[in-house]
Amino acid sequence: SKTTHTWVEKAAILFGHGSKSIRWIPTDDENKMDNKILSQTIQQDLKDGYQPFMVVGTAGDVSTGVVDNLKEVASICKANNLWFHIDGAYGAPAAIIPELKAMFKGIESADSIALDPHKWLYAPLEAGCTLVKNPKHLIDTYSSHPEYYNFSKDEEGQSLNFYEYGLQNSRGFRALKVWMALKQIGSDGYKKMIAEDIELSELLFELAKNHPELEAMTQNLSITTFRYVPSKNLPWENEKKEEYLDTLNEILLDRLQQGGEVFLSNAIVKEHYCLRGCIVNFRTSKKDIEEIIDIVVKVGGKTHHELQNEGQLNSINSN
Amino acid sequence: SKTTHTWVEKAAILFGHGSKSIRWIPTDDENKMDNKILSQTIQQDLKDGYQPFMVVGTAGDVSTGVVDNLKEVASICKANNLWFHIDGAYGAPAAIIPELKAMFKGIESADSIALDPHKWLYAPLEAGCTLVKNPKHLIDTYSSHPEYYNFSKDEEGQSLNFYEYGLQNSRGFRALKVWMALKQIGSDGYKKMIAEDIELSELLFELAKNHPELEAMTQNLSITTFRYVPSKNLPWENEKKEEYLDTLNEILLDRLQQGGEVFLSNAIVKEHYCLRGCIVNFRTSKKDIEEIIDIVVKVGGKTHHELQNEGQLNSINSN
Repeated sequence: SKTTHTWVEKAAILFGHGSKSIRWIPTDDENKMDNKILSQTIQQDLKDGYQPFMVVGTAGDVSTGVVDNLKEVASICKANNLWFHIDGAYGAPAAIIPELKAMFKGIESADSIALDPHKWLYAPLEAGCTLVKNPKHLIDTYSSHPEYYNFSKDEEGQSLNFYEYGLQNSRGFRALKVWMALKQIGSDGYKKMIAEDIELSELLFELAKNHPELEAMTQNLSITTFRYVPSKNLPWENEKKEEYLDTLNEILLDRLQQGGEVFLSNAIVKEHYCLRGCIVNFRTSKKDIEEIIDIVVKVGGKTHHELQNEGQLNSINSN
Repeated sequence: SKTTHTWVEKAAILFGHGSKSIRWIPTDDENKMDNKILSQTIQQDLKDGYQPFMVVGTAGDVSTGVVDNLKEVASICKANNLWFHIDGAYGAPAAIIPELKAMFKGIESADSIALDPHKWLYAPLEAGCTLVKNPKHLIDTYSSHPEYYNFSKDEEGQSLNFYEYGLQNSRGFRALKVWMALKQIGSDGYKKMIAEDIELSELLFELAKNHPELEAMTQNLSITTFRYVPSKNLPWENEKKEEYLDTLNEILLDRLQQGGEVFLSNAIVKEHYCLRGCIVNFRTSKKDIEEIIDIVVKVGGKTHHELQNEGQLNSINSN
């Protein structure tokens, strides 16, 4: 969909398909891929003599954490004999939470899932991972046997040579940290920690919703988006007002990032520039969430005040 | 050339060109790319309507360490407006040795050089590196600016965002270990250590050459190839004898690798299966080199003896 991570474009260019081979499918009101348009696009491409080969579903999207209707996507892929890939770089581990089972329905049908253990499996940077339903597909794609790689006849066919499973030949042992965390934390531990992150994100959303100078925008998985909106009336309405709020929140985000107290990122939600909080750290506490609110309101108020003064100065100067 | 590392095939497949787009150029008597055939192949391809775009030179080749005549390759590339890439994964750091300046002449003309600091810059696995003459080419290839990456207006154009220089977005800080080693060791230190490795490799070659049960094959940079050849007369000649020596040395290498005392790898030199010693460890000493000889001769003799006995048993059984 249109919300898919930029990597898909990078990959399409680098692997020789070119960015024109991509169909960016619009999203529906819930920010999920519009599966009706997906189906129509596939039919149109087939009619036009193109050969679709893969659909990328999102779980959840990088900006707001929304999970596509994966079950529908899976059946569209099945009907059209297409590879079903899920970008679950951030969100896939949340599929372990019992309450989210319905939301992730269909993930089990994916041919491949991209997943970054350095995101929601709490591994240190970097740990990228691709899960495939049929491991033979990796070997078929990546294996090569130059004459200067010696494997004894006994080993051949039995041993696991990791260079045959990906782009890299010489590889660091990044799997170790992922495996050790899995052993230490276990599925119960991950269920607990991931559920806590989601609760903290919900708390952030609630606090933003109830604060007179904040506007809560979206809450999905552990991502909350919101923005600073000065409580006293602004001198503009509609477009002009929205333009100002975009500018204000963009400057505010830069200041927050430079301030070093809070690290929020950004998201564009329904064309509004928003602050984005994504909780994927097991050390984050309720106190941290409350402080985010306090700091955003404090720095937001100060930034608004300065922008207003600059505005007045400009008015005076232009007289 | 035919000696280029398998990565070039993997890359051609993965990046959408297909392995048929590769022209494997034969090597000359010195195992260097035959630049006359290179030129002819380019002209033939142009005549046939193909569009050559890159020549890969080798410095040095993975099996025996031979460095192509890079100056000639550079001028062929210039004459035909082709990208000149050098695979210097193992050998490029040796260009720092004053005595090897002539051998590496032309390396300065490369558009790009691949280099693995985890090989001859002694960095721990993994540290892959691509040097480009014009850094803008990396940005042009890899940069993308999704809306959810926030950079303040001040930063834009000034800051160095490493995801714009390669395939990966989230990247571990592998450069740190390379940079720290460069700072600690310095160019003088690297000159000394690399020169020592080359001397040790020359010693291995000399010892193999002077041993009645070993045949020294090649010595380039810090790679020596040799093989075990039983001193007493073998019951076969020519082809049959060579077939036996290939089998013997292949089994010998497996045993050496499983034995855990010595780690040699293999190389095919002029169709002979050889043992390959590549010295890239600053802890390797003269004593280690002498022990390699002793262990190879001991295990080689034992392996030969067993194969001969098996052969006799087989003869008896088949009677």
